[in-house]
Amino acid sequence: MRMYDLIMKKRNGFALSGDEINYMVKGYTDGTIPDYQMSAMMMAIYFKGMDEKETLALTMAMEKSGDELDLSRIKGIKVDKHSTGGVGDKTSLALAPMAAAAGIPVAKMSGRGLGHTGGTIDKLESFPGFSTDISTEKFVENVNRIGIAIMGQTASLAPADKKLYALRDVTATVDNMSLIASSIMSKKLAAGADAIVLDVKTGSGAFMKREEDAFALAREMVKIGNGAGRKTSAIVSDMDQPLGFAIGNALEVEEAINTLKGNGPDDFLELCLTLGSRMLIAGGRADGEKEARQMLLQTIEEGTALKKLAEFVEAQGGDASAVYDTSLLPRASLQRSLYARTEGFVSHIACDEVGICSLLLGGGRETKESRIDLSVGIVLQKKVGDYVKENECLAVLYANDADKLSAAENRLQKAFQIGQEKLEKKPFIKGIIT
Amino acid sequence: MRMYDLIMKKRNGFALSGDEINYMVKGYTDGTIPDYQMSAMMMAIYFKGMDEKETLALTMAMEKSGDELDLSRIKGIKVDKHSTGGVGDKTSLALAPMAAAAGIPVAKMSGRGLGHTGGTIDKLESFPGFSTDISTEKFVENVNRIGIAIMGQTASLAPADKKLYALRDVTATVDNMSLIASSIMSKKLAAGADAIVLDVKTGSGAFMKREEDAFALAREMVKIGNGAGRKTSAIVSDMDQPLGFAIGNALEVEEAINTLKGNGPDDFLELCLTLGSRMLIAGGRADGEKEARQMLLQTIEEGTALKKLAEFVEAQGGDASAVYDTSLLPRASLQRSLYARTEGFVSHIACDEVGICSLLLGGGRETKESRIDLSVGIVLQKKVGDYVKENECLAVLYANDADKLSAAENRLQKAFQIGQEKLEKKPFIKGIIT
Repeated sequence: MRMYDLIMKKRNGFALSGDEINYMVKGYTDGTIPDYQMSAMMMAIYFKGMDEKETLALTMAMEKSGDELDLSRIKGIKVDKHSTGGVGDKTSLALAPMAAAAGIPVAKMSGRGLGHTGGTIDKLESFPGFSTDISTEKFVENVNRIGIAIMGQTASLAPADKKLYALRDVTATVDNMSLIASSIMSKKLAAGADAIVLDVKTGSGAFMKREEDAFALAREMVKIGNGAGRKTSAIVSDMDQPLGFAIGNALEVEEAINTLKGNGPDDFLELCLTLGSRMLIAGGRADGEKEARQMLLQTIEEGTALKKLAEFVEAQGGDASAVYDTSLLPRASLQRSLYARTEGFVSHIACDEVGICSLLLGGGRETKESRIDLSVGIVLQKKVGDYVKENECLAVLYANDADKLSAAENRLQKAFQIGQEKLEKKPFIKGIIT
Repeated sequence: MRMYDLIMKKRNGFALSGDEINYMVKGYTDGTIPDYQMSAMMMAIYFKGMDEKETLALTMAMEKSGDELDLSRIKGIKVDKHSTGGVGDKTSLALAPMAAAAGIPVAKMSGRGLGHTGGTIDKLESFPGFSTDISTEKFVENVNRIGIAIMGQTASLAPADKKLYALRDVTATVDNMSLIASSIMSKKLAAGADAIVLDVKTGSGAFMKREEDAFALAREMVKIGNGAGRKTSAIVSDMDQPLGFAIGNALEVEEAINTLKGNGPDDFLELCLTLGSRMLIAGGRADGEKEARQMLLQTIEEGTALKKLAEFVEAQGGDASAVYDTSLLPRASLQRSLYARTEGFVSHIACDEVGICSLLLGGGRETKESRIDLSVGIVLQKKVGDYVKENECLAVLYANDADKLSAAENRLQKAFQIGQEKLEKKPFIKGIIT
């Protein structure tokens, strides 16, 4: 077999066989197939696509390109949750304790990543001492004992995907549904869960700007997951404005804690209940949506989810005092309110722009080497559809640097649009694919 | 400027500007743009194409990527001839002396190349002592003195094309008309001629199998040449069967010499007259086709072309005795006739296959390191349309190795098809583009 012939075959619009895809992924991972052939192949796939069978084969070849997590020593049906990411997405912080409290073992690999804010791991480091640098033994033991553990994603997990994504990122070959889906799913499959629940975001703050693309990606990933023998479902949810009110690491932790205390934003709570229901159904803990939602709400009402969060933080070396007293979380020294310049209804919040403001304040990473300031960020006071009077507060910015604060403030002002007509509210959950 | 953005732009179907193309070619030549980005770009160009302006910009950027030959010290209008190559293509060997004898200065760079037989330089080495390893001074002096000189193509000529072609060759991105045209023309432009005459081959033995593709390439190259300020014309000629009768280095030299003596094959003579006419017209030596053909025929009738060949061989260190006595050319030790198995009309000669037989006999290079046997090859006795009786000779094979001879003989037998109907003769010259 020669990579040249495979490029030609794909370029001419033919489907690659499973053997051919395995040959390609193996050769690329071990370096016998060079970058320049793989990037030509990726561009040919961009134009000619891959069918369902090819996409599954690519995903599974990448899944098997490195170590796979063996979760067999964890009792029960392990359900993993994955989000395509967005601004203010603190879902795992609240959902994982809720699901664990409802009896679903949560054994999660998580990343730091680049972006507007840190990843789940960065956010959790708002609890002093918290670490995801734990052994696989400890990881398994924690899940069996308290129902929840999170570890950092190892470099040996799906290395083919890592290498391929880095190549696609610099050759303008990211935007293909099959490639995006197989990249996400290869890591999820290698992470070993029995079932997978996906949250595909859509809107101005999401990777998938258009709803139809989000649905296409969701369907593609559900097909892959089920094709690989893992019970998989997906929801498509709104990311046309930030999720909840808080954007920034410790600020998001605080909002997640408040949610577990029963004081969460409507959209965020709805997301946790919808995703959590899919997890409880997939994990065999509930028969239907209604029962599942009831069980999840109960973990809030009875305080079991909050307690689970504290147990989890402590089990991974963190000081959980802040779970009960959020004033102990990292705090920024500067605080400034942003005021509405006109009266009316908030018609649009440029979601990407809010994310960039958080980054400007120091809350995210621009490069792998950047240090994150956990305390900074933004807390929205108004969301799309809300009525504001002139000079009413739209958002509060938290910072530790006056220059950064001014830059972010100017930019955030432009992110808000205020109109005179009251908009009809669009549904926050766009659909569920099973 | 970032290569990433240029790949994205082309991928999305937009035209690149001249500045963008210059940036890309410069960066790729000096190594700041990596292979993997360039191969993705090439695949994007394969799918999205390049317009006339882009193609010209790419060609001229590659032309200027290295040294350019300065032919200003050569008197008169320098006309270069280029063929896309085929089986039995010994055109330069006869045409260069004819054109020179008719007053057109021939200052030619030529290659060795891979293929069924050697390149023009290999063939000329059938004259003992002949060398193309001459200084630019000597090259210019020879053209001014005797009207003709040929030197080897230097590595510093259009290095961007060299690097890019090698990349396209291993990434299945060769087959794009703009890229093929710009690759050929960048070298021709850098070689410094004032006018260019192109011979684009079509048929089973040509790179362009389909006549419409050959015409498209011809038109593309003529546009580039004229766009770059060089008077350019092209002909499309038949390569559905070998050109003339002889395939193999010294055998082709003999056929070229015989042509200059007035005993050339019809198709080969016609090709020399057609291309030669374009050269004489471009060089201002003749006003029209009829006058030009007359002048060229005169160089044969009066023996001036043959004399010019001898002068040229001697001027580059060769022993020209063989020009007057072809029995002095390298001779193979083994000779075998191939006989027709049935009576009828030759309906097809698989041209590529005949080329491979020549390669099997040792007449061509499979890799850069291969040594060529100048003496071996094939001389056809029958061509398409000819009537043959059973056991009449179809071709004679020349070899120095009995095993190679048998292998080539078996293969050559299959290359001939004999049918019962007399075919109508197709025109040998398919068209002229100016």
